[in-house]
Amino acid sequence: MRAVQTGQFEGGSAFVDGEFVPLSEAKISMFDWGFTRSDVTYDVATTWQGAFFRLDAHMDRFFASLQKMRLAIPYSRAELREILHGVVRAGGLQDAYVAMVCTRGVPPRGARDPRLAQNRFYAYALPYVWIASREKQLAGLDLHISERQRIPATSVDPTVKNYHWMDLVQSLYDAYDQGRDTSCVVDAAGNITEGPGFNVFMVKNGVVHTADSGVLEGISRRTAIELCERLQIPVHIAPVPSAALRAADEVFLTSSGGGILPIARLDGVALPDFPGPVAGRLYDAYWAIHEEAQYRDPVAY
Amino acid sequence: MRAVQTGQFEGGSAFVDGEFVPLSEAKISMFDWGFTRSDVTYDVATTWQGAFFRLDAHMDRFFASLQKMRLAIPYSRAELREILHGVVRAGGLQDAYVAMVCTRGVPPRGARDPRLAQNRFYAYALPYVWIASREKQLAGLDLHISERQRIPATSVDPTVKNYHWMDLVQSLYDAYDQGRDTSCVVDAAGNITEGPGFNVFMVKNGVVHTADSGVLEGISRRTAIELCERLQIPVHIAPVPSAALRAADEVFLTSSGGGILPIARLDGVALPDFPGPVAGRLYDAYWAIHEEAQYRDPVAY
Repeated sequence: MRAVQTGQFEGGSAFVDGEFVPLSEAKISMFDWGFTRSDVTYDVATTWQGAFFRLDAHMDRFFASLQKMRLAIPYSRAELREILHGVVRAGGLQDAYVAMVCTRGVPPRGARDPRLAQNRFYAYALPYVWIASREKQLAGLDLHISERQRIPATSVDPTVKNYHWMDLVQSLYDAYDQGRDTSCVVDAAGNITEGPGFNVFMVKNGVVHTADSGVLEGISRRTAIELCERLQIPVHIAPVPSAALRAADEVFLTSSGGGILPIARLDGVALPDFPGPVAGRLYDAYWAIHEEAQYRDPVAY
Repeated sequence: MRAVQTGQFEGGSAFVDGEFVPLSEAKISMFDWGFTRSDVTYDVATTWQGAFFRLDAHMDRFFASLQKMRLAIPYSRAELREILHGVVRAGGLQDAYVAMVCTRGVPPRGARDPRLAQNRFYAYALPYVWIASREKQLAGLDLHISERQRIPATSVDPTVKNYHWMDLVQSLYDAYDQGRDTSCVVDAAGNITEGPGFNVFMVKNGVVHTADSGVLEGISRRTAIELCERLQIPVHIAPVPSAALRAADEVFLTSSGGGILPIARLDGVALPDFPGPVAGRLYDAYWAIHEEAQYRDPVAY
C-alpha cells in the first residue's frame, strides 16, 4: 500500500481495495455478500487525544470474529495496525471512530457458494461518534426497555460483532415513538441484553450487575468490569431481568461511543440516582485510564 | 430519469441515484445503514423469455415490507415498474434476476437517529440465477438439515424480506463440510423453516406439507400452493418437524431461483421418490403458467 500524508483527507478517510481514499469513495459492491447476506464482521476502535485506546483488545476480537465466521484478511496484525493508524493519520483526527470491516465478497456471477468469494477488507476513520450528545447526557438519557427480543445466540453468535441490527433499529423507532432517547432489547426470558451499540449495566445496593451471555463482549463492557475490580466495586455477571433493571439504583451504558453513559430515566420513570455515585466513579476512571501507557497506542502524525 | 436503450449495458444493469448504470457502478456507501445495520428490505422478481412473472405480487410484497420497516421510496408503483423494466431492457436480458432494494440511507455525520436518514432505492437486473445448476438438479440435490435456528419472528419479522442471513450462510458451510449441496435451518422447536433463498416442501402419502410461520412468504411458495389447489393436490400448511421431513416420500424447494427444485437426498440418505411424481407435476405446471397472460408482464425491448 502507498504511504499516506497526515491530513491528506482532512476530516476522515477510508482504506478500500488496498488504498487510502476520501470518505466519498468508501463504497462496497451491491453484490458483496457483506451487503446481500450481511455476511460480514467488523470492529470499532477509538482514538482519544491522538492515541488509540486498547487497540490490541479490538484487534484480538476482530481476528477472533474472522475465524468464527471463516473470513480472512490478507494483512498481518502489524499491517492491520498500520492501516488503522493510516486512516486516522490521513483524516488528521485526534478523537476518532475507527472501523475495520471484513465482508465475504462477491462470489462468481451466478454462484451461491460463499467459499468461492474473495473476502474484502475495509477500514475507515471518522470523527469520534457519541451514543448521545454531551447535552443529552447532561440532561439525562431516557432508556426504553423494548419487548423486542435480541436475535438469539442459537441463530447468530453475539460474540461475533455483526450488523444484524433490525431488532435494535426497530426498538429505536419504538423508543422515539414514546419520546425516549434510546432503547435496549431483551432475550426470550425477558432478561436485558443490549442496545444499539452498547451494553447495559445496573447498580443495586452498591453491586454492579450486567448480563453474562447473549450479548456482545464489548471492550468497553470489559473495561467497566475491570475498573470495578480496580475500584473494589463488587460486580455480578449474570442474567439481568428487566424488572431488576426497573428497580435499580443506577443504570449506565458502556460503549466505544462515549465510554460510561449514565441513564436518568427508564421509560420516563426517574431512577433514584442520576448521576449516580458508582457510574460517576467509573466515568472518571474510564477517562483517566486513557492516559495509562499500557492502553495507549499514540498515532504518529 | 433518463430513458435507457435496449442492451445499453449488455449482460446486466443497475439503477442507482436515479440513473441507469452498468453493474460495475452498482455500489452503496459503507455508511449506509443498509450495510452497517442491515437496515434494508428488498425483493427479487424474475423475467422468463422476455416477460416478468407475477411482478405485481413481488411489488405488493416489496411495498408491504417498506411499510413494516418504515422505509419509503420516491417512486409510485407505475414508476417502480418502469424502473424494473428499464434495468432488464438496459441489460438486454430475456431470463433475468431483477432486484429492488431500499436501504435506510446515511444519517447526518455523528447522528444515530434512523429517522434523519434519507432512504435510498436501488434496482438491478442480472442473468437468471439458479439455486442449483441444471446438472446438479438432474444429479439430485442433497439437502442438509441444520441444527442452527432461523432468526425468530420475535427478533426479525420474516415476512419482511431481509438480508439477515448469517444463520443461513453458516448452515451452508456446515452443509459443504459434510459434502451436501445446500441446507435448511429449523426453529427453536425443531421445525423446518427455510434455506438460503428458498422455502421447503415435503410430500407424504400424496399430501403436500410446508411451514405455516416463521418463514418468508415466498411468491414461489405461494405459486406452489396455488398450483396444488389447481391440480387438486391436498396441501397442509402447518409446522413441519424435521423428523417428518426425514420420513417424507418427496422433498422439494421453491424459489424464484428455479421455481420447483426436487431434492434427492437428505443428509446423504436417499428419499423414496426422486424425481417424485408430485414435484414433477408441480415443476411442469410452474413453467407452464409462465405462458399465462395473467402472470406475464412482457418487457418492451
